Amino acid sequence: MMHYFTEDASTETVNGRMGDGINPRLAEVMACLVNHLHAFTKEIHLTQTEWDLAVEFLTKTGQICSQERQEFILLSDVLGLSMLVDAINNRRPSGATENTVLGPFHVSDAPVRSMGDDICLDGKGESCLFEGKVLDNHGGPIEGACVDVWSDNADGFYDVQQPGIQPKWNNRGRFFTGKDGRYSFRGIKPTAYPIPNDGPVGKLLAQLGRHPYRPAHMHFLVTAPGFQKLVTHTFVGDDFYIESDAVFGVKKTLIAPYERVMDDSTLWRSPFDFVLTPA
Amino acid sequence: MMHYFTEDASTETVNGRMGDGINPRLAEVMACLVNHLHAFTKEIHLTQTEWDLAVEFLTKTGQICSQERQEFILLSDVLGLSMLVDAINNRRPSGATENTVLGPFHVSDAPVRSMGDDICLDGKGESCLFEGKVLDNHGGPIEGACVDVWSDNADGFYDVQQPGIQPKWNNRGRFFTGKDGRYSFRGIKPTAYPIPNDGPVGKLLAQLGRHPYRPAHMHFLVTAPGFQKLVTHTFVGDDFYIESDAVFGVKKTLIAPYERVMDDSTLWRSPFDFVLTPA
Ligand SMILES: [Fe+2]
Ligand SMILES: [Fe+2]
Repeated sequence: MMHYFTEDASTETVNGRMGDGINPRLAEVMACLVNHLHAFTKEIHLTQTEWDLAVEFLTKTGQICSQERQEFILLSDVLGLSMLVDAINNRRPSGATENTVLGPFHVSDAPVRSMGDDICLDGKGESCLFEGKVLDNHGGPIEGACVDVWSDNADGFYDVQQPGIQPKWNNRGRFFTGKDGRYSFRGIKPTAYPIPNDGPVGKLLAQLGRHPYRPAHMHFLVTAPGFQKLVTHTFVGDDFYIESDAVFGVKKTLIAPYERVMDDSTLWRSPFDFVLTPA
Repeated sequence: MMHYFTEDASTETVNGRMGDGINPRLAEVMACLVNHLHAFTKEIHLTQTEWDLAVEFLTKTGQICSQERQEFILLSDVLGLSMLVDAINNRRPSGATENTVLGPFHVSDAPVRSMGDDICLDGKGESCLFEGKVLDNHGGPIEGACVDVWSDNADGFYDVQQPGIQPKWNNRGRFFTGKDGRYSFRGIKPTAYPIPNDGPVGKLLAQLGRHPYRPAHMHFLVTAPGFQKLVTHTFVGDDFYIESDAVFGVKKTLIAPYERVMDDSTLWRSPFDFVLTPA
């Protein structure tokens, strides 16, 4: 037993201190965390001044958090940790639509609309028809799937970020598929927007020479009985930030076509099929 | 270049995003941190629920911090990180006195006292004579060394934790050595005390089956021109918590004798020599 601290046996000393009969998963997670934190500290030879800065950074990150602001999630996002946790917990067979992060702007119980309805209520932006099918892994249509969608408006804000300015439920809606598995709705071609960057995480991004923007995307949450929940976005491929999403949400398979349409008030069409995985 | 996220290449994608011309040390530290955080997340297969709990824990840890309370330092302490950073940055040749953490209770500019003076001003506790020499690495006495000392009182509190209850500067003082390098002062045999455990870190300790106590110790900060600053404690070897310091501050070489003295009002004597390392 290592009772007294030494640099060489630092992790054994710390992890050996855990009591008997504690939650075995907690013990496993904490031992692994201590191993990696100590390995990081040793590998980088962290100085006392750098440790002071880290304590100050974490403290400020906690203190800017409020009901409306979660800076630790932002931190996890910009370090790619949120995407990594999402990826690890949503490994899918080839051919199935990939997951990406939910993000902070989903609202439950958006209005149920009819196929073809327009979810853009503020009249801003370039109208776009989103359509496609919800399929099982054999290519068959899924009936009764809920396609829950949301995006920012032409100014780059979600309705919940501008209460009183945007109409309630602007650019949101739920659509239930019929026998053919088809969905279709009108919205706008989405807009790139920055994550909140007036706090410690924004300052860190600037110090790392990184911008805070997310490439334009439409959010989809697709659920159907007997299938895994699919949380994803489709991305606008020609977005300026498509190869540098601040939160690493882009996956190659999630870049959707945006085709120019010239024959009516709809300017764009973005077809995309979703393939669900059995639960 | 990895522009799009994949589970396998997660660290390359995140670290490849850093801009040119940024602070090279920051780039190095952040890349190493991302590598270890991602390795931890993959190794332990962190679930979404566990990630949620971690975000909540870090947020609460930040939000309990105030002018008087630094919960992230406590977190670093109980994970052995504070001691590790201290150890890495204060490697010393064999024979030199070892460092340990400063702790949160040091106060600059404590009163300068004469050798033999009693620093215990509240009349509580068992009187103890602390004495010894400040030496260089050849065993020669160091003249003009400042021996800055502080301890808790018999109730387990530092004076700064009980303003208005304890006399100001209770159990604190600075002593300057003469030609012989000797120091001596009277204080009390110190008392074990708990680190603050009414916050998230205390709750974590409890879940890990660990107590929040530090074994009894006297703090020493010894400085002399031309020598490295020595930040250390001496520990009471028969303390109940000597092998389970909540912050891992104990090193074997820092356990001091506490000898019973029967011939006057002083009940204990704790001799200890400090060997400084050239700057
Ligand atoms: Fe979004
Ligand atoms: Fe202490």
